[in-house]
Amino acid sequence: MRPVSADEIESLAIGAWILGTGGGGSPYLALLNMRQLYRRGVVCRLMAADELADDDLVAVVSNMGAPLVGQERLTDPKTMALAVTMMEEYLGRKFSAVMSLEIGGGNSIQPFMAAALLDLPVVDADCMGRAFPEAQMTSFAIHDLRMYPLTLADVRDNAVVVARAASWKWMERISRKACVEVGSIASTCKAPRTGREVKDCAILGSTSKAIRIGQAVQAARRAHRDPIDAVLDAEAGIRLFGGKIHDIARRTTEGFLRGTAMIEGLDEYRGRSFRLAFQNEFAVGWLDGQPRVMTPDLICVLDTVSGDAIGTETLRYGQRVTVIALPAPSILLTPKGIEHVGPRAFGYDLDFRSVFA
Amino acid sequence: MRPVSADEIESLAIGAWILGTGGGGSPYLALLNMRQLYRRGVVCRLMAADELADDDLVAVVSNMGAPLVGQERLTDPKTMALAVTMMEEYLGRKFSAVMSLEIGGGNSIQPFMAAALLDLPVVDADCMGRAFPEAQMTSFAIHDLRMYPLTLADVRDNAVVVARAASWKWMERISRKACVEVGSIASTCKAPRTGREVKDCAILGSTSKAIRIGQAVQAARRAHRDPIDAVLDAEAGIRLFGGKIHDIARRTTEGFLRGTAMIEGLDEYRGRSFRLAFQNEFAVGWLDGQPRVMTPDLICVLDTVSGDAIGTETLRYGQRVTVIALPAPSILLTPKGIEHVGPRAFGYDLDFRSVFA
Repeated sequence: MRPVSADEIESLAIGAWILGTGGGGSPYLALLNMRQLYRRGVVCRLMAADELADDDLVAVVSNMGAPLVGQERLTDPKTMALAVTMMEEYLGRKFSAVMSLEIGGGNSIQPFMAAALLDLPVVDADCMGRAFPEAQMTSFAIHDLRMYPLTLADVRDNAVVVARAASWKWMERISRKACVEVGSIASTCKAPRTGREVKDCAILGSTSKAIRIGQAVQAARRAHRDPIDAVLDAEAGIRLFGGKIHDIARRTTEGFLRGTAMIEGLDEYRGRSFRLAFQNEFAVGWLDGQPRVMTPDLICVLDTVSGDAIGTETLRYGQRVTVIALPAPSILLTPKGIEHVGPRAFGYDLDFRSVFA
Repeated sequence: MRPVSADEIESLAIGAWILGTGGGGSPYLALLNMRQLYRRGVVCRLMAADELADDDLVAVVSNMGAPLVGQERLTDPKTMALAVTMMEEYLGRKFSAVMSLEIGGGNSIQPFMAAALLDLPVVDADCMGRAFPEAQMTSFAIHDLRMYPLTLADVRDNAVVVARAASWKWMERISRKACVEVGSIASTCKAPRTGREVKDCAILGSTSKAIRIGQAVQAARRAHRDPIDAVLDAEAGIRLFGGKIHDIARRTTEGFLRGTAMIEGLDEYRGRSFRLAFQNEFAVGWLDGQPRVMTPDLICVLDTVSGDAIGTETLRYGQRVTVIALPAPSILLTPKGIEHVGPRAFGYDLDFRSVFA
């Protein structure tokens, strides 16, 4: 267990936004909350999963909903902490630590906000290694762990417990509808996990990884090197395309942000085009009409100059962007993993082929 | 406290269906369940509200959803009992009795099904004195009692607790969406009530009243008298129209059954027409285009010959029907009551005028 510095939180916000593959929500507002908390003297603690006792109980938190809504209804540490304390009350047990559902985007910082208010450590892990839109798209679901209970709190005074769900898909359906009804954004505490479950079934070290990616970007910027090259070097990534956002179709529907973005090639990609489809996160990319990259490979759209990630909610016409791919955690690449998070899980009739194969 | 005979359950089904004003779901399937339970030796007990201790806890139950769906997804005592035991587990307290949310339709029998399985008495009361479609349309809401928690169980293995709600309308919105998602029908245990709250804020004696109405219908049938006259005599009702169902528009939407029915006059009403609008229950009736009767006055559509009630889900072309009005409980006629259950609460820009005024 070690303290996390304010600088590391800044790096986390940069790195997690890249790992968000367009989703997980912009970390910016969560970062502002953390800056304020740190100015007040808060210092969060990060622990490795193997420091957990087997029977410790870990809160798995996320801000659930459509990223675009998160730009309007601002995130608040209190709401996230409320989802966690609701779960403690429901279980009649206390948590030993908090962890991210998904390390991508603002959801990397949500556990820090809850941890700050509840004085709990954050576990250096998540269960996606990126961001995904749905409840069953986690390493815990792939390992067939129990999917309930879930607590959900909004900014008014509404609070829901999904006490049981017949399957991961039912958990997704029911919690999504509750989320949509309270405005398509809500703080959630997912099914609690034991220390043993986290050690066996989580994606470990992902918080550190996000911090490391952020630091690589920052170091490159300071050295006037290309931050995108720095990310590719640090994480064994592949550059897929570069160009200008040419067209975007985007709608907030059923609690998700869905749409497509077209990129016109520039420089070495001139004359070529790249199309991205997303459901909160980028799911598939087509180069000149042919599938080039698909989930669960991480499809990251970065500002060509700054290396900052661009979310599906912040894409806009005229942006100069570079599309890269980063490797997915190995659990997602197993046959069971591909069932949960491969292209068919998003409705694309494509056989998964990794760009890293 | 007294035992309820199998014959009384039969009468209850007839009377409650009339009080259902088209909604509350057909009691037929619930009645079949009760016949089976009674054949196995079950004898339910009915208690007056004033037999409750002030700090007794009472489960308020209902089958929630769109009546039409209840014709396809059959009712099951186990699911209703599950909603009650879920609430006990959530509260960490045991119930002393069960009562109806609404005495109208099958929801008059739902507490008997739960009571039979859980060996609890049924309180002779409800909180509508009829049936209404939404959560805030109760005497408890009109008295500003607390609206949460609510438990909801379906026939699969899904279970939701609405732990807090910012208002009665929020409780309605959130629980309705959960209900719709599991198939537009679910067993619910509403916010628990103390004995004191039931005594002060429920509509008392409504189970006995429904049994009495049913007995009046049965007695008239045996004596070859008009059962509708018997209901009007017993409950100081008014005959509004008689004719043949000429047209029906009906859709199951947003967890409700909404629509309109047109009746062409017969006999003394020949040449005239009556239009009914419903949201689960009949809300407004127009005679020759003029508003004639409106909620919360009870608008009951009965089979002209048998006196059996006809639900909004069982209305069909060609039925010979008689429309009657019965007086609403006085709490619904207060200014606060009219706010909750008057015509404007259903979207009709009409000032409430009782046919009994």
